[in-house]
Amino acid sequence: MKLDEYVQVMRPEIENALQAYITRCVPKEYPGLHDMLAYHMGWEGEGAGADAQGKRIRPLLVLLCAEAGGGDWRSALPGAVAVELLHNFSLVHDDIQDNSPLRRSRPTVWVKWGAPQAINLGDVIFTLSFMAIQDLSKTLPAEDVLAANRVLHQTCLHLTEGQYLDISYEARPVLPMDSYWPMIGGKTSALLACCCELGALIGRADETRRAAFSAFGYSLGLAFQVLDDWLGIWGEPHQTGKSAQSDLVSGKKTLPVLYGIAKDGPFARRWMKGSILPDEVPGLAHMLEEEGAYASTLETAARLTEESMDSLQNAVGSPGNACAADAAQALFDLSHALLQRQR
Amino acid sequence: MKLDEYVQVMRPEIENALQAYITRCVPKEYPGLHDMLAYHMGWEGEGAGADAQGKRIRPLLVLLCAEAGGGDWRSALPGAVAVELLHNFSLVHDDIQDNSPLRRSRPTVWVKWGAPQAINLGDVIFTLSFMAIQDLSKTLPAEDVLAANRVLHQTCLHLTEGQYLDISYEARPVLPMDSYWPMIGGKTSALLACCCELGALIGRADETRRAAFSAFGYSLGLAFQVLDDWLGIWGEPHQTGKSAQSDLVSGKKTLPVLYGIAKDGPFARRWMKGSILPDEVPGLAHMLEEEGAYASTLETAARLTEESMDSLQNAVGSPGNACAADAAQALFDLSHALLQRQR
Repeated sequence: MKLDEYVQVMRPEIENALQAYITRCVPKEYPGLHDMLAYHMGWEGEGAGADAQGKRIRPLLVLLCAEAGGGDWRSALPGAVAVELLHNFSLVHDDIQDNSPLRRSRPTVWVKWGAPQAINLGDVIFTLSFMAIQDLSKTLPAEDVLAANRVLHQTCLHLTEGQYLDISYEARPVLPMDSYWPMIGGKTSALLACCCELGALIGRADETRRAAFSAFGYSLGLAFQVLDDWLGIWGEPHQTGKSAQSDLVSGKKTLPVLYGIAKDGPFARRWMKGSILPDEVPGLAHMLEEEGAYASTLETAARLTEESMDSLQNAVGSPGNACAADAAQALFDLSHALLQRQR
Repeated sequence: MKLDEYVQVMRPEIENALQAYITRCVPKEYPGLHDMLAYHMGWEGEGAGADAQGKRIRPLLVLLCAEAGGGDWRSALPGAVAVELLHNFSLVHDDIQDNSPLRRSRPTVWVKWGAPQAINLGDVIFTLSFMAIQDLSKTLPAEDVLAANRVLHQTCLHLTEGQYLDISYEARPVLPMDSYWPMIGGKTSALLACCCELGALIGRADETRRAAFSAFGYSLGLAFQVLDDWLGIWGEPHQTGKSAQSDLVSGKKTLPVLYGIAKDGPFARRWMKGSILPDEVPGLAHMLEEEGAYASTLETAARLTEESMDSLQNAVGSPGNACAADAAQALFDLSHALLQRQR
């Protein structure tokens, strides 16, 4: 099977598993909770559909890594559900924390239902994520389920540590470039590493290969985020579904911005004067480009891409069967697709 | 041993276990996270100390139920840590959701560090709670650790369902009295039931007794909350550490308020006209008292207290050894102490 065939088979299974799981766990006495969940997950409400659901990259990674690790991807569905829910918990809280009005071109949960309900919905989804992984008990021994729990818990800790850094950076006008890595390591890479490690664990890959799968996910996450930062300034708004200006206007310390601050040139001088207005964005984006941030950010993304491909090669090794070989190839193709977005 | 001796021995152990656990899990690279955690837990910052820490009732329940269930309370410390953290996660988010400036007479986390960091701190504590319970692996077989996980997860789901109801009730001026029970069942009772069930599980009590321990905690929680609602209107502000007026002013649908609404008298007519101003509180509290809410609320608390004592009797049965008998008596004494607060 090729990547697009895997996606065609796995995507509906992921969606079904997510829906069945939520229907099973959230009692019918709470229709309002269901509405919020179904809205946020992109199943119901205005603008519902494939675009609102996102690409479900994280659960796909779990399933493909389970198969590439030597297992059967269907047995990894509880892991796929858990990581997608974990991702969505963080999105719901993130949108409140960042005061973001839109997510995938739709009003965010806190805009529609208020911050108190949105905080609580995030907590519900967080809980559901932890619960979902327990379903691995059906196919794995209890010790392995506990190991999967540990992977998920450590990931949550990294995720929240990254979020802590991200929020604290907002109050600091100047930051060294190396402060960037623990922040996105926690916010983005930890969860992708978790997807790959969980998949490998469920596929019963040995410890060494599990570590390589985790490293692959981690540097894939770094590369992805660096590219996302680049898109946040120079990407086309209609392609990303969010304002291309928001990263500069929100004062986020993205890699290009930290590059500009380190350069200590015209961009840094303007940055130090305070909040950037939407009108100034095109000029400042051009200024950053002239100072080298555009090219440097793309180069960093390319280097990280190479690192993640090396780790993936170590992880898949010499696949033991045709299914594992197909899944390994699909992982290479998926990584390439992710890292070539609308440039 | 008597209750006060248990408390004297267990309280420092709970505090040590909480501190050691947090120090172990949150890396030193994040001193700001430590500061927030240590402030919220009452260990550091302005007003730190025993009053700021609260009574740690929930972990005490876990330990006493473990002992009363036939086990050794020290082996239940991971459960005690998990429930206290779960409680504190919910307090941090609750304070944001309710816009509360004070918690145990100190500024709340969101007031000191802003809502975005407070949301994230709640998520950190939530994660730490789930991680803590895994430490039961040191003394329990993996299957039992998974069972403890299930108890904790189901509790979180009930907790967030109760919170969902609580927040949605705010937008509805009129509610029937029976809408009260699922709300406080989730918000308060679920966690107390969890404490008792976890303790019993760790103490290796059989299924029937575990269910009785759970039922004891659940009705103890209902009785406790009904009394708390009473205190929220008629309690002395300096004894509860929060404004006695806040429950009427915040528009919370407490049991006395729902009683007043159902009476459809002068209180209900004023209630329907919109938000209550602090100046009106003494008059409205008196009005509610005249209409019978004061006495009815206390009667309900008394009935629930009796129910919880019956369940506790079923749970402890005929204790198998002197330690279990002492702990059972301490549980009776603790319940009485909890339900006789500053009346």
